[in-house]
Amino acid sequence: MASKSAELLSRMAAGDGHGENSSYFDGWKAYDKNPFHLQDNPDGVIQMGLAENQLSLDLIEEWSKAHPEASICTAEGASQFKRIANFQDYHGLPEFRQAMAQFMGQVRGWKARFDPDRVVMSGGATGAQETLAFCLANPGEAFLVPTPYYPGFDRDCCWRSGVKLLPIECHSSNDFKITREAVVSAYESARSNGVRVKGILITNPSNPLGTTADRATLAMLATFATEHRVHLICDEIYAGSVFAKPEYVSIAEVIEHDVPGVVDRDLIHIAYSLSKDFGLPGFRVGIVYSYNDAVVSCARKMSSFGLVSSQTQLFLAKMLGDEEFMARFLGESARRLAARHELFTSGLREVGIGCLGGNAGLFTWMDLRGMLREKTAEAELELWRVIIRKVKLNVSPGTSFRCREPGWFRVCHANMDDETMGVALDRIRLFVRQHQQQKAKARRWAARGQLHLSLQRHGAMPSQYHALSSPMAALLSPQSPLVHAAS
Amino acid sequence: MASKSAELLSRMAAGDGHGENSSYFDGWKAYDKNPFHLQDNPDGVIQMGLAENQLSLDLIEEWSKAHPEASICTAEGASQFKRIANFQDYHGLPEFRQAMAQFMGQVRGWKARFDPDRVVMSGGATGAQETLAFCLANPGEAFLVPTPYYPGFDRDCCWRSGVKLLPIECHSSNDFKITREAVVSAYESARSNGVRVKGILITNPSNPLGTTADRATLAMLATFATEHRVHLICDEIYAGSVFAKPEYVSIAEVIEHDVPGVVDRDLIHIAYSLSKDFGLPGFRVGIVYSYNDAVVSCARKMSSFGLVSSQTQLFLAKMLGDEEFMARFLGESARRLAARHELFTSGLREVGIGCLGGNAGLFTWMDLRGMLREKTAEAELELWRVIIRKVKLNVSPGTSFRCREPGWFRVCHANMDDETMGVALDRIRLFVRQHQQQKAKARRWAARGQLHLSLQRHGAMPSQYHALSSPMAALLSPQSPLVHAAS
Repeated sequence: MASKSAELLSRMAAGDGHGENSSYFDGWKAYDKNPFHLQDNPDGVIQMGLAENQLSLDLIEEWSKAHPEASICTAEGASQFKRIANFQDYHGLPEFRQAMAQFMGQVRGWKARFDPDRVVMSGGATGAQETLAFCLANPGEAFLVPTPYYPGFDRDCCWRSGVKLLPIECHSSNDFKITREAVVSAYESARSNGVRVKGILITNPSNPLGTTADRATLAMLATFATEHRVHLICDEIYAGSVFAKPEYVSIAEVIEHDVPGVVDRDLIHIAYSLSKDFGLPGFRVGIVYSYNDAVVSCARKMSSFGLVSSQTQLFLAKMLGDEEFMARFLGESARRLAARHELFTSGLREVGIGCLGGNAGLFTWMDLRGMLREKTAEAELELWRVIIRKVKLNVSPGTSFRCREPGWFRVCHANMDDETMGVALDRIRLFVRQHQQQKAKARRWAARGQLHLSLQRHGAMPSQYHALSSPMAALLSPQSPLVHAAS
Repeated sequence: MASKSAELLSRMAAGDGHGENSSYFDGWKAYDKNPFHLQDNPDGVIQMGLAENQLSLDLIEEWSKAHPEASICTAEGASQFKRIANFQDYHGLPEFRQAMAQFMGQVRGWKARFDPDRVVMSGGATGAQETLAFCLANPGEAFLVPTPYYPGFDRDCCWRSGVKLLPIECHSSNDFKITREAVVSAYESARSNGVRVKGILITNPSNPLGTTADRATLAMLATFATEHRVHLICDEIYAGSVFAKPEYVSIAEVIEHDVPGVVDRDLIHIAYSLSKDFGLPGFRVGIVYSYNDAVVSCARKMSSFGLVSSQTQLFLAKMLGDEEFMARFLGESARRLAARHELFTSGLREVGIGCLGGNAGLFTWMDLRGMLREKTAEAELELWRVIIRKVKLNVSPGTSFRCREPGWFRVCHANMDDETMGVALDRIRLFVRQHQQQKAKARRWAARGQLHLSLQRHGAMPSQYHALSSPMAALLSPQSPLVHAAS
């Protein structure tokens, strides 16, 4: 259109709109072209790249049927139609903010209190992060983000607000925990490059790790933020998806019980959403919750660009306000998530595949380091392509989460039924076993290779030998049309 | 928060989040403090500053009750709950885009066709304008906007995207029509000030004028845009609120029947919404419709920040897709708007107050030039404060729409019932009559003033004479507590 600066357009071109980078997008395309269906397309690609929660929607559907007054489109709720349809206050329906504040406390085990007047609406967590980036930083300034991190942040923080995201490098050696040393190192590195750091952005529970931050880590981050006058943005959109010990600790709890003065609350901001914990991404409910009055005021003004539909606000006001149902929902949802997580990780263990010990979220951080040809990002993507094309599972490679340590994959397991999960597990196990056999075979070939190598020197090397020297290549059988497409 | 650039914060501070300027906001505060209610607060302020359509919501409510399948919260629609709640494709529900494209044609009398693949969702018209500003211009570049214009554009185009809005001056002498001379003058003026013009932004039907642009004007604008390689953004959010001749002409119709090659369609963009024509601002439905593929692609990516709730998408897909109901609705809505407009303008005519001849929208552009103390913006605001405080009608002064010609007021008349409208009319008529009496009295005083003037020269002038020399001041009786607040 020759209208937008080249820089902005290139920022956007780097993403696919799902907020993911291009390699991630390839997986989506593979899925979209050939989606799995238990009966209709049992050889299709199974979508394991989508952090979607389908496990407990039946509870919400039941609640909805039992509460017609929560809808303006029922005989019981129609008297509210005019008020709701015409409602345009960007502060939101008072009952919605009240119920949301109450629920935000409930989902955190009542260990922190939330003020309805600090609840600001936005278009999903996407909108919440964008709003915070806009409010807290100018273009070219940076947020530090522990790796691996949700790649959608590149869209949310960078596309419009022009914020840079700089990695805080985390490692498997300590289960990817955020250390003060890593934070200091990232901070100093930015400063030595002349980049002004404006905040630290974490997800807790972590996407993609599926782990929760401990109290000491959160206290360290809040203290660091106070000392260095940078903001701490906590994305807590999986707060209601913690299914095992250790118990969830929100930054809200940490600062509430903090000795006054140690942490500057004006620097603390929370993003929340109902897309993950409830499986309601279509409803586009994002929340900015800030302890800083100026940010609340700024974010509320910006919220005009992404308010929640009043029809949806009313429904949620009634549902979130039903404390008893919410308690039942959270308990049952946690049980179902735990069961699914156990089914998946124990299934992987059968073939010797490990995962990071997770206690939250809708995914598992799967360790396939042992299956890499070599410890490089290229080898990870090579393995990933095989998984997409041959195993037909759309998982997400660690590189798409900016993980520097090759061989990790995020696998979503809450967006399907048990039967599909069974098929997915069977496919992974078959793949791993084939790979193990292939590896053993390759070792034998390699041993023979000593002989071939001398033959090759004399011009007697069979050409297919090279193609088979990688176990991945061996799995892409020449019969597969996908091989052709890949070349 | 010491985080955002001073320039950005000041851009935002200039608005109140309703997207209006501060004088406009004062009127809202007066209303909020003391809102009129027919029984409970008959002396309160009547809200005539809100372009809200309450006249035909009963038709939608009835349709809704007759179509429970359009809601996921009814027994008839619950089977769709999971699909809809979990829907997160930023392209939107296919049935929503299809129905919206169909309706956009229907509302324009089927004289233009709309392609569902060019329908991009956004958070209300607010979000649509913001998205277009972001896609089409860089910070510091300008859109030309005919005056008077909707002040919300200052929020939509400027707050985040940093676009400048430069006036195309229009005048009452030709009923505020946009002339090529005025466009050229604004364009040349911008260029001579070193500002790059990227587009022309019009509202058609016009807010605040309540008039529609004719075919020749639209063709002139499209041709100018093509010649000068600037975009033409047509805000058509009142397209379904045209209630009288001349028939509505959309830019879509103009370019569809344009001789190919005269107008570059890549430069044409439409913003639409359901907030005004249906009275559904709470639903946050904005549409970007562009003839430019790159803009469609960019806007769709940006739409992640302001998608329409899938619950609302489904409801609207069903309703907009009901062509027969839509025809009935549009016809009945136009009849009711026409009746209300006639009631209001004829009521004003009784006391000699004229209005710009309007045929569309939810408001009237009322001419109170004859009541100004002098032809200045200050005098307009002085009169406006009296209307707010004494007459207790929250109307909007022309200055808040950047009208350079003092004495015009936008009065919204579709956001109340007939009884309230009757009270509002009675108040205006009483005020005008009092003012006319006061003016006559002042003229008598002035005649006597010739005498007094000579007396004053001798130190014999009564002090209250000065206070009464303005008819406005006379209306602010010393008994009114508002006078005190105003001082």
